[in-house]
Amino acid sequence: MRTTVGWQLEAPSTRLTRTSLRRRELRPDDLAVRVDYCGVCHTDLHAVDAARHGETGRGPLVPGHEFTGVVTGTGPEVTRFAIGDPVAVGNIVDSCGECAMCRADQENFCHTFPTLTYDGVDRHDGSPTLGGWSREYVVRESFAYSLPPGLDPAAAAPLLCAGITVWEPLYALGVGPGTRLAVAGLGGLGHLAVKLAVALGAETWVISRSPDKADDARRLGAHGLLVSTDPEQMAAARDRFDVVIDTISAPHDLGPYLRLVAMDGTLSHLGHLGALTVEAMDLLVGRKKLSSAGSGGRRATSAMLEFCAERGIAADVELLPSARVEEALDRLRRNDVRYRFVLDMSDLGEGSVV
Amino acid sequence: MRTTVGWQLEAPSTRLTRTSLRRRELRPDDLAVRVDYCGVCHTDLHAVDAARHGETGRGPLVPGHEFTGVVTGTGPEVTRFAIGDPVAVGNIVDSCGECAMCRADQENFCHTFPTLTYDGVDRHDGSPTLGGWSREYVVRESFAYSLPPGLDPAAAAPLLCAGITVWEPLYALGVGPGTRLAVAGLGGLGHLAVKLAVALGAETWVISRSPDKADDARRLGAHGLLVSTDPEQMAAARDRFDVVIDTISAPHDLGPYLRLVAMDGTLSHLGHLGALTVEAMDLLVGRKKLSSAGSGGRRATSAMLEFCAERGIAADVELLPSARVEEALDRLRRNDVRYRFVLDMSDLGEGSVV
Repeated sequence: MRTTVGWQLEAPSTRLTRTSLRRRELRPDDLAVRVDYCGVCHTDLHAVDAARHGETGRGPLVPGHEFTGVVTGTGPEVTRFAIGDPVAVGNIVDSCGECAMCRADQENFCHTFPTLTYDGVDRHDGSPTLGGWSREYVVRESFAYSLPPGLDPAAAAPLLCAGITVWEPLYALGVGPGTRLAVAGLGGLGHLAVKLAVALGAETWVISRSPDKADDARRLGAHGLLVSTDPEQMAAARDRFDVVIDTISAPHDLGPYLRLVAMDGTLSHLGHLGALTVEAMDLLVGRKKLSSAGSGGRRATSAMLEFCAERGIAADVELLPSARVEEALDRLRRNDVRYRFVLDMSDLGEGSVV
Repeated sequence: MRTTVGWQLEAPSTRLTRTSLRRRELRPDDLAVRVDYCGVCHTDLHAVDAARHGETGRGPLVPGHEFTGVVTGTGPEVTRFAIGDPVAVGNIVDSCGECAMCRADQENFCHTFPTLTYDGVDRHDGSPTLGGWSREYVVRESFAYSLPPGLDPAAAAPLLCAGITVWEPLYALGVGPGTRLAVAGLGGLGHLAVKLAVALGAETWVISRSPDKADDARRLGAHGLLVSTDPEQMAAARDRFDVVIDTISAPHDLGPYLRLVAMDGTLSHLGHLGALTVEAMDLLVGRKKLSSAGSGGRRATSAMLEFCAERGIAADVELLPSARVEEALDRLRRNDVRYRFVLDMSDLGEGSVV
């Protein structure tokens, strides 16, 4: 086994602790990756909170599933990467490769459930997967992505989860010039949805409780901001958007957002998992559709990274040394970040770059 | 005022009673219609039950919103109909005519809410609308439809509500040759959805709790029947249908039906109104969409009637004298009808055909 170091939560501790971790020796198609930057996602917050409440059963938790770094080792069958290559990894590190969804390049929908980057189980040795809040990760090369030149590796890290999660519905719904689109919630997902939708040519609006985000919305390229707590603004925008991308991270009433969707349009919900309740009439009147999104397949992830490199799109990040991970979690819980925390892993040591 | 006779529920009675009703004198663009046949819809059942429980406040209830008959009188500005013309009326009898939805031929989504055929309020004189379980109806000509030659008027009556309700999603979702489609629930809506989808060229399946409906499904043109209570059949059909039309009239778990929807496909829910709950994961995995449908606009209704006339499609009906309306309601409540009750209004008298 290889050893590295990372931020781990293990009962009975309730704090993430700098811990020595073990990684598998490289299999023939594996890469070793020195993790340089890893984003802090709402999923990480939920996982940490669940572990603190004793709700996970798989043992030690090492979060982190959107990271960039450098290849430091390659198995003998690796063909696409060499030592020193800049690389990125998202929230999926394996899938069956055989089901209809995998064959359709949608490994995120793998019928056997994709192997998650952390809190998953390796398909070959049954070991629990430990995430990217660590200095080294070992991954099959087919689930690693070349980081295109020109992308800042810290600001690019959130593209691997937040970015692909918003890219998928934009792509699936054919968003482009002529599309009238609104993004509800201006956080980690939302700000990337705005940037991508603007770059795709859509007339893009932001919906937020906070009127003070209007300047930010325009800086991100949006046409303007609708204040969700202003009934007159919301009423005036009824049936106005072909697509509404709902990135609000807490459970909430979908009705007000559905009512903004135009005839035959779609509300795409990505903010959180769990039960979604809508009134049939809110769908029926205007023949509207509700969809949900999260993550994406390998082909879409590569395409999204290329698009972002061409257009100079990455996340607005606040970079913190990884030792300040608890501060990042606390502030994320209060939505006190514009717009994504990224942990700088260099404080964990040199890694094992050859 | 004109007088006619119909089946009315008025507190404190809990039974529909043959009652003398008043209709407005013809306005310039009005038709008088002798109602010959009127269908019995689940909406009627709900309205009667609600009235019996004291839940409506608009006064006397005369249900019925899918009927066919003959024009017996015309206002001076009527241009499209003459006395003696066969005619059909659905569940909407007026709308604002000015909003974006009305201008888009979707009067069913009128921003001021369309005027319903019964239990609505007339836009001009404020009187409550009384439905088609009566011998005469007075309606604006623009909300009456020519009944195309070749359609049996009794079997055509349910097209005006059940038919257009299933036509709308089939049309909006582009169902045609190559579409794999399933219809959940084989009742008034479901059997028409099967007939229309088959005629549109879709590979059409029925999903039912009752394996004994397999013969009926095939007789209606379906490829076969999936038994919803058979977990193996349901698992084998996972991700199989581009479109699932859910016509089940009682609230139920949408998850099993969403799981039958193929990648990027749609579950269209039309069985009942109220709150719909889905698990985000059931939408997310496979990028599926949930929609809802009910009723349709004038243009779509006319197109649907023409299509049905060309293809010889109408409802499978059980015709009862209108005096047996309570029997129809009781049996509909038990789903004991294949597949739609239609009331024959001739037992209410001659009407006032000139």
